[in-house]
Amino acid sequence: MAQFKKVVLAYSGGLDTSAIIPWLKETYGCEVVAFCADVGQGEDDLKGIEEKAIASGASECHVVDLKDEFATNYIYPTLKTGAIYEGTYLLGTSMARPVIAKAQVEVARKVGADALAHGCTGKGNDQIRFEGCFAALAPDLEVIAPWREWSMRSREELLAYLSERNIPCSASLTKIYSRDANAWHISTEGGELEDPWNEPSDQVWTWTNSPEQAPDEAQKITLTLDKGEVVALDGQSLSPYEMIASLNELGATHGIGRVDIVENRLVGMKSRGCYETPGGTILLAALRAMEELVYDKRTRDWRETVGQQFAHLVYDGRWFTPLKDSLLAAATSLADDLSGDVVLKLYKGHVTAIQKRSPNSLYSEAFATFGEDDVYNQKHAEGFIRLYSLSSRIKAMKQK
Amino acid sequence: MAQFKKVVLAYSGGLDTSAIIPWLKETYGCEVVAFCADVGQGEDDLKGIEEKAIASGASECHVVDLKDEFATNYIYPTLKTGAIYEGTYLLGTSMARPVIAKAQVEVARKVGADALAHGCTGKGNDQIRFEGCFAALAPDLEVIAPWREWSMRSREELLAYLSERNIPCSASLTKIYSRDANAWHISTEGGELEDPWNEPSDQVWTWTNSPEQAPDEAQKITLTLDKGEVVALDGQSLSPYEMIASLNELGATHGIGRVDIVENRLVGMKSRGCYETPGGTILLAALRAMEELVYDKRTRDWRETVGQQFAHLVYDGRWFTPLKDSLLAAATSLADDLSGDVVLKLYKGHVTAIQKRSPNSLYSEAFATFGEDDVYNQKHAEGFIRLYSLSSRIKAMKQK
Amino acid sequence: MAQFKKVVLAYSGGLDTSAIIPWLKETYGCEVVAFCADVGQGEDDLKGIEEKAIASGASECHVVDLKDEFATNYIYPTLKTGAIYEGTYLLGTSMARPVIAKAQVEVARKVGADALAHGCTGKGNDQIRFEGCFAALAPDLEVIAPWREWSMRSREELLAYLSERNIPCSASLTKIYSRDANAWHISTEGGELEDPWNEPSDQVWTWTNSPEQAPDEAQKITLTLDKGEVVALDGQSLSPYEMIASLNELGATHGIGRVDIVENRLVGMKSRGCYETPGGTILLAALRAMEELVYDKRTRDWRETVGQQFAHLVYDGRWFTPLKDSLLAAATSLADDLSGDVVLKLYKGHVTAIQKRSPNSLYSEAFATFGEDDVYNQKHAEGFIRLYSLSSRIKAMKQK
Amino acid sequence: MAQFKKVVLAYSGGLDTSAIIPWLKETYGCEVVAFCADVGQGEDDLKGIEEKAIASGASECHVVDLKDEFATNYIYPTLKTGAIYEGTYLLGTSMARPVIAKAQVEVARKVGADALAHGCTGKGNDQIRFEGCFAALAPDLEVIAPWREWSMRSREELLAYLSERNIPCSASLTKIYSRDANAWHISTEGGELEDPWNEPSDQVWTWTNSPEQAPDEAQKITLTLDKGEVVALDGQSLSPYEMIASLNELGATHGIGRVDIVENRLVGMKSRGCYETPGGTILLAALRAMEELVYDKRTRDWRETVGQQFAHLVYDGRWFTPLKDSLLAAATSLADDLSGDVVLKLYKGHVTAIQKRSPNSLYSEAFATFGEDDVYNQKHAEGFIRLYSLSSRIKAMKQK
Repeated sequence: MAQFKKVVLAYSGGLDTSAIIPWLKETYGCEVVAFCADVGQGEDDLKGIEEKAIASGASECHVVDLKDEFATNYIYPTLKTGAIYEGTYLLGTSMARPVIAKAQVEVARKVGADALAHGCTGKGNDQIRFEGCFAALAPDLEVIAPWREWSMRSREELLAYLSERNIPCSASLTKIYSRDANAWHISTEGGELEDPWNEPSDQVWTWTNSPEQAPDEAQKITLTLDKGEVVALDGQSLSPYEMIASLNELGATHGIGRVDIVENRLVGMKSRGCYETPGGTILLAALRAMEELVYDKRTRDWRETVGQQFAHLVYDGRWFTPLKDSLLAAATSLADDLSGDVVLKLYKGHVTAIQKRSPNSLYSEAFATFGEDDVYNQKHAEGFIRLYSLSSRIKAMKQK
Repeated sequence: MAQFKKVVLAYSGGLDTSAIIPWLKETYGCEVVAFCADVGQGEDDLKGIEEKAIASGASECHVVDLKDEFATNYIYPTLKTGAIYEGTYLLGTSMARPVIAKAQVEVARKVGADALAHGCTGKGNDQIRFEGCFAALAPDLEVIAPWREWSMRSREELLAYLSERNIPCSASLTKIYSRDANAWHISTEGGELEDPWNEPSDQVWTWTNSPEQAPDEAQKITLTLDKGEVVALDGQSLSPYEMIASLNELGATHGIGRVDIVENRLVGMKSRGCYETPGGTILLAALRAMEELVYDKRTRDWRETVGQQFAHLVYDGRWFTPLKDSLLAAATSLADDLSGDVVLKLYKGHVTAIQKRSPNSLYSEAFATFGEDDVYNQKHAEGFIRLYSLSSRIKAMKQK
Repeated sequence: MAQFKKVVLAYSGGLDTSAIIPWLKETYGCEVVAFCADVGQGEDDLKGIEEKAIASGASECHVVDLKDEFATNYIYPTLKTGAIYEGTYLLGTSMARPVIAKAQVEVARKVGADALAHGCTGKGNDQIRFEGCFAALAPDLEVIAPWREWSMRSREELLAYLSERNIPCSASLTKIYSRDANAWHISTEGGELEDPWNEPSDQVWTWTNSPEQAPDEAQKITLTLDKGEVVALDGQSLSPYEMIASLNELGATHGIGRVDIVENRLVGMKSRGCYETPGGTILLAALRAMEELVYDKRTRDWRETVGQQFAHLVYDGRWFTPLKDSLLAAATSLADDLSGDVVLKLYKGHVTAIQKRSPNSLYSEAFATFGEDDVYNQKHAEGFIRLYSLSSRIKAMKQK
Repeated sequence: MAQFKKVVLAYSGGLDTSAIIPWLKETYGCEVVAFCADVGQGEDDLKGIEEKAIASGASECHVVDLKDEFATNYIYPTLKTGAIYEGTYLLGTSMARPVIAKAQVEVARKVGADALAHGCTGKGNDQIRFEGCFAALAPDLEVIAPWREWSMRSREELLAYLSERNIPCSASLTKIYSRDANAWHISTEGGELEDPWNEPSDQVWTWTNSPEQAPDEAQKITLTLDKGEVVALDGQSLSPYEMIASLNELGATHGIGRVDIVENRLVGMKSRGCYETPGGTILLAALRAMEELVYDKRTRDWRETVGQQFAHLVYDGRWFTPLKDSLLAAATSLADDLSGDVVLKLYKGHVTAIQKRSPNSLYSEAFATFGEDDVYNQKHAEGFIRLYSLSSRIKAMKQK
């Protein structure tokens, strides 16, 4: 078996990565540097994490604040493409992986590591996303995926493994759900969700109110867009991260952004997940509303194509590829005209664009109404229709 | 100017087509046969319509019940494709046009007409849809579109025109909105909607409760699907039309199916419309939920492509084309596995699939959970990832 | 290590599969049944193959004639889709894999085998194609891929292995190229081709004349199409297989169908291959020419989409999937109108459609020429253009 | 009828536009400024054109050299997208229209014109392309399309019209073909081509040798690419226009670039055209060869999508749209890696890439061959295949 000198581990402070530290040291005879990405998963998860890592046997622990980087260079560009995976999933976990993997490689370079490790299971998408990024950014570094190598399979075994080594761990023996949280979303899998014929119980949802619990009073907010980026909330300029955080609060209050889906994992199996994306759902609604005013029929259709491609790319962990550059170039160009204001109504799980305006709007009251105007002569329609349906006419005449 | 012997007019009993009857007779010296399609627009619209047509000068009036035909051969097949126009519009008016146009041509053949007429405006999509169908089905018949020919431009003028001829008409002088209703939806345009910066007023919505008005108690229903068709509601078999009618009632009660959008018309301009599609929104949710269980990643993606193409085809009035046959063949084949049950929760504007099961489900609890199983060996993932990211790795190594 | 009772091996009579027979017996303690598919690779390859298999240790050898099945149910349907991989490759090897795999599974069922084996390398596409088909058709049978398991890596080792066991083998020590032949094509890889900066030498091409060697006299042939299938050559009805065989002869004489490409394998690496597909290139030219007459703009575009999808599907070994059924349903529907005659000129590597006609042609001399006609009124063009460019006009006016 | 002060006419010096000058003056009481675009159509066409325009009644004649602009800003960017219309047509006429229209608008602005005129027929694509560009660039200027307005329909009538006005014209009474020439191509329509069952006669082709006439000796050339642009021929740096001109000579000699197709015009009818694009065919072959080395599977597929979209966009005259910007942004990003050398063999109508190399090549002899290497472990293939075919396996197991 290969031996390594120094391994940088994507460390979360949870049970799995706590056990991975000693396991790596024992298995590969290496020093382990813990790397912890702050992508907005919340202060509880990060509090005391450095001490925890050292206590588990790490030689160093690097906590890197990636919140702005994540919001600005991953979430906002993805929003411009309109990407949604399989019609529903807003890619919260998927978008976070490349920003984390990139920072992890940077730490590895700084500390002179010869390998990278992660705590992803062998059945999920995240292993592919991490390792796909590693392949693109650091093909010279080895990758260690303990869950594919060791024989431990349960929380009991992990807890016993730690206890044998006198490594303190506050993890409980039972954990119903598997969750992933960041500035954009929380995902929940496992427990009763494993049978799609079960309705999710209330414990599944940890962030947002249910529509039932949400206030009976609707709330209206105004979002201002500039070139496809939402830049102000009710007139106040906010950075991408601040905007997401503010809208998360509003969305969570009003029960916005819950979805419960069975999706196709890249590894070929299906999984069922419940996602809460309160702010993201609001942002997407604002962008869609602006598109309605600004894109013509073909341009909108093309944006749809770009978004569908981008959704697969992000979900499938291919961020650091030439295809990503090309798709983002297309989307950024499209977003050039997406400027204006959208008023959104938040009410019991709904976010509805009720007012929208843009200096680049192609909507014209004068043209759309039924009276005459200078630009559109109704008589032109006849010619349009004759040519538009000409091939049908020819075909029909031939068949007679 | 051309003269015609007998013209079949798509007649609704409203102000416009009431005026068109005498106008056609005077302008073309022809007999006018009124044709009235019952596509589920409601009994009020149809009551006494034959008398009205005769009173307006029609020589005959044919009312044809197309409700089952519409539901079975237009709506249900379109549902299998998953078509939604510009991400939002469920194509209610668009799907109705070909079934009406086809029946109108059949009446024309029966009565030996030499021309067809409709009351569509020169600025809208419907003229294209009607005339596109006419071109495919009856290229030998002439088409008359009075709104593109006559000089009348207002309700006042039309009312005066009728009054001069002593033709009774109950139409009021002012009418704020322009609406289109059928078994699938009601659309509303005009009035304050003409400025997208205006929120729709309460008068816009005539069918569905608002989420605010909807019951505080959620309701759960079970829909059974067979090969992509929803065939039973809470265990009771229903024909497509009966199913749509039943779900319309449920959806309208629970405030389901309202959308307010600015869309791209085929004629190149934008228009703003509010749509109510209560039953349709429920049907679509059921189909989407079943897809989640049954389609693999690539199959789902292909269905998305088929649906996007079909949405444009239907919206753009190209129903009677070889492209429609090909798209429907693809969709029908895909729908073969879409059988099973979906439980939906209806609550204040939401329709949420909370339980789903299918004999053809590709979801397997055994595979998706994190323990070992026979089919999926976690060690396989390493090989998958290595090959999946191989081109990234090669590219990165070349660049060093 | 697993033990098997009876293994059915896809056997070619070449060095690799000759060695696999004893290796399987020794490694798995199993009986080996040789299965040899006749997909038109030529009589030389098949002569005495049963004796050879028995001499190598097989308990039985089943030679199955799949030529008609291959031509009728794999090649002709694929042709209807217009599938070409990466713009150039006519999928000769890819299409043959599913027909072979299906017959191999049928033999396995007949003889009661518990495993399937093939001689594909671990770096290529064919292992994926075979095993993808096995997964769909016989998920209960184990698959053995000796090249991924044993340690032998060279012809020397294989020859030594056979010689140690006194198994006769006429294979030579050196073999420059790796080839695959069937009724549709011959592919050649390896040797000097491994450097894309090398021009292929003359030895690469074994079937077709070079354009330089081809006759100086052009030859004209007439192909008759019926619903997307080429059914007659110069008026003589031929089955799909007979047609391919006849056109192969003509094409090979005239130097038609050579391509030399670097392609993307599904396993993530690139490979360089030279392909000879003489008859196929002629068939494709005939279908393309007929499409020109029959498909309108949108229909042709859709066929292109279907073809691109199908090319990936076939190349990637996903024949026995619901996606294949859907794509073929779409293509078969499209092909309904592809009937008529095409005259093709064969000359020094060129196949050129010089005359084409179809009862379903949408081409009309009367419309296309510049004089007046009844169907097309030039004044209609103004209206078409005004509406077609309306969104550009609105955008430009807004920007002023 | 509208009256204009000053009209800028796209003037070619041919019979049609010679007659249009006096017709515009008489019909609209306006001054006519002739505008003549030099897009490389050849010196013969341009010699004495200013005198001719003045003699026909123009007040001024502006000849603008657009050759470099055409090659650099229209042809080379389009090449990066890989756009080919309906699989065959290299868009020679289509790409020239926007560069001409833009320069025409610039002349109109300079001379203070209030209208633009062109000599395109009412049945073709060019009227749409010109007027689509005018709508985007100068929505305030009126457009006059005499062929859609006047009643003249034949060369006889035009010649008589000129002769009545004593305007000299060297045009002959009969002209079999309609042609369009520029730096990129020559197109030929009409005459015997109007029946697709007729083979094109020798008179159709005016630029290229036939394969039969081409030299019996092949010629090899080396093209150097930099970021998707062909920048050197046999080591000599050339501007885009110079490159096209040089390759045109080589291609014409070797009989390269002839196609004979029936295509779908945007106006809904089919037309048959013969195109000669000698240099363009060579350029495209060089780019395709480089793509083979540089693009991975998904990237290549995306380029195909971009190219298909761009082909329709250019053909349909939508150059000055946001969609064009987005597509070109995507293509330019993709082209970043397209650098290297391609050796092409020119022989009797064939252009074949026989050698290719790139610093960005993803091809690796080490990986592609069948021995072991460090990057690719054949054992990885098993895992890849298991996951890749997992959904097929699950489906098959469920069906048992």
